[in-house]
Amino acid sequence: MNRIKINLDKRLSESHEICIGYDFQDRMGLLIAKDHPANRYVIVTDSNVSQLYGRTFLEKLKELGLPVELLEFPAGEGSKTMETVLGLTARLLEMGADRHSMLIALGGGVVGDLTGFVASIYMRSVPFIQIPTTLMAQVDSSIGGKTAVNLPQGKNLLGTFYQPKRIFTDLKFLETLSDEEYLNGLAEIVKYGLIDEPGFFEQLEREVRALRARSLEILEPVIERSCRIKKGVVEIDEQESGFRRILNFGHTLGHALEAASKFTLPHGKAVALGMTAASRISACCGFLPPEERERIEALIRDLGLPVRIPSDVAGPEVLGRLAMDKKKEGNELPFILLKKIGIPFMSKDVGLSLPEKILEEMAA
Amino acid sequence: MNRIKINLDKRLSESHEICIGYDFQDRMGLLIAKDHPANRYVIVTDSNVSQLYGRTFLEKLKELGLPVELLEFPAGEGSKTMETVLGLTARLLEMGADRHSMLIALGGGVVGDLTGFVASIYMRSVPFIQIPTTLMAQVDSSIGGKTAVNLPQGKNLLGTFYQPKRIFTDLKFLETLSDEEYLNGLAEIVKYGLIDEPGFFEQLEREVRALRARSLEILEPVIERSCRIKKGVVEIDEQESGFRRILNFGHTLGHALEAASKFTLPHGKAVALGMTAASRISACCGFLPPEERERIEALIRDLGLPVRIPSDVAGPEVLGRLAMDKKKEGNELPFILLKKIGIPFMSKDVGLSLPEKILEEMAA
Repeated sequence: MNRIKINLDKRLSESHEICIGYDFQDRMGLLIAKDHPANRYVIVTDSNVSQLYGRTFLEKLKELGLPVELLEFPAGEGSKTMETVLGLTARLLEMGADRHSMLIALGGGVVGDLTGFVASIYMRSVPFIQIPTTLMAQVDSSIGGKTAVNLPQGKNLLGTFYQPKRIFTDLKFLETLSDEEYLNGLAEIVKYGLIDEPGFFEQLEREVRALRARSLEILEPVIERSCRIKKGVVEIDEQESGFRRILNFGHTLGHALEAASKFTLPHGKAVALGMTAASRISACCGFLPPEERERIEALIRDLGLPVRIPSDVAGPEVLGRLAMDKKKEGNELPFILLKKIGIPFMSKDVGLSLPEKILEEMAA
Repeated sequence: MNRIKINLDKRLSESHEICIGYDFQDRMGLLIAKDHPANRYVIVTDSNVSQLYGRTFLEKLKELGLPVELLEFPAGEGSKTMETVLGLTARLLEMGADRHSMLIALGGGVVGDLTGFVASIYMRSVPFIQIPTTLMAQVDSSIGGKTAVNLPQGKNLLGTFYQPKRIFTDLKFLETLSDEEYLNGLAEIVKYGLIDEPGFFEQLEREVRALRARSLEILEPVIERSCRIKKGVVEIDEQESGFRRILNFGHTLGHALEAASKFTLPHGKAVALGMTAASRISACCGFLPPEERERIEALIRDLGLPVRIPSDVAGPEVLGRLAMDKKKEGNELPFILLKKIGIPFMSKDVGLSLPEKILEEMAA
């Protein structure tokens, strides 16, 4: 037997920047034209965002003389499927998009995850830009290069790690956000308060009223701090070998709750419940001091997020979904717990009986 | 507007080795067990290879105590679709495969491309090993990390660059290869003779008889040299930014011919015709000396490959397919031509009228 070594040790730059501001869509166009040359730009968006912002953004890019087209698909998590991927692909082929074309994901988490996935596999990858329009996408899903589609068997089961060339985060978009969408983002922001410096959690506690009122003065620094926390984690562990898992705080149970509710429970509420459960588990195991557990639940509640599981979500169904989680390693399901506010850690010893007990305790 | 830089400059090792030999499946099993620990191994293969080798290889791994299962799909290019990807994914989920599981692609180009693609997107990627069983897969498609599926609109339109952890190339598998499959591989070997040192081309000219007789004594060094040429190209330009395109010599027209024949024309024959056409174009443009063009056609013919296009493949259809090629940059289609045997270069000035003339000239 002979051996031939294929040497693919390489230096790879996937560095890019988040541009954060208020009402700077004109400037986005100029920056795209200047820094991201392409033979064709394709804005990918959903039916809601298309009406609100897609068509005007399309016109802005056209006015700059860029060759640009817009593709839209029906809004909602139900579109995050391989069927939509194939539909978008067919339309990209029709319009002649090739490896030198650039996709622009304009929308929330579904648009970003789906467009990123298409960009990562269309003709073995084309570049793309993220323009997140929801609070959740701005502080979380647009950062870190996770792309995915759902399968009937579960969420995000097919996907890639694929970084955008740039992220444009414009707070102007938040003005048309529904309360539910806004809460989805707040839940992720609470998560950052729990897994990073406790100072951020205290800031959130102080600013509950301003956050509920969507005060731009508070939102701008809070979003920026959230982005910095997320980017710091992603820089250390892009492909989720270990450390990045702290971002799953509240999400393991959150995803199971979402799936068990057949996605009638919004992501933010599911994550809020997941964080409540994870905090209670942390306290039960003797890690998190009871008074901190109470502060966490108080903040979640005060922001308008739930700490009680709706009666139509069945406990056994949730546990069944947990057992199928894709983060599972053999029979162990790693759980992110808290030692204190701001100090998360991963435990593989939680099992399923303690979550079961906590889920019962939290039933409305 | 504030800016946050996400620093993802990194050193990435995707180095791996090709192990080449004759009849060493026992050793493969031992090497997999020793060097590639996983919580579960899944052999992915097609219905032909499963019968010939899949079940016995499954047993070998089981005897070593490895947790291993086998998934098969119907043999043939027709299976290289997203439907098969989703079918395999569903079965991986059923058996509980997770991020710590390892796929093993046992088969020809279709099995390797498809399994590699599944590995690159299943739960945002799981590791995989290539065990190519055809000559074409051994000298070409198993090396370099290109994965893909076909779409109704064309070949390989969705895919990724994703490297295997190891490649096991066992010449024993070639003993059950059909003549057509064998010729598919010989066509790629001729390509290596044309794009690398002329000494290899001369070796092939000298060994025509032994190659047609599938003499192991000749095949072993010829396969190893082919692998070395391919790996050398891939090391320089993994993602086909430029240099790797020389591997497309004969393939741009070859793919168009394949598609235009509705895939009744085997890949090897299509590539042989594509190389003949590219040589003629090179000669017509005044690059390739006429006597070298003749030597090339003589070798192709002597190996049992065609230099005349079958009458049922329509010229206009071929040109239409060319215009849709995914390597197209705007309106320019880069063609790989030859200055001499062993000295390829890329030209964007070929256009479509010269290929049209050459296709007519080559009509049977």
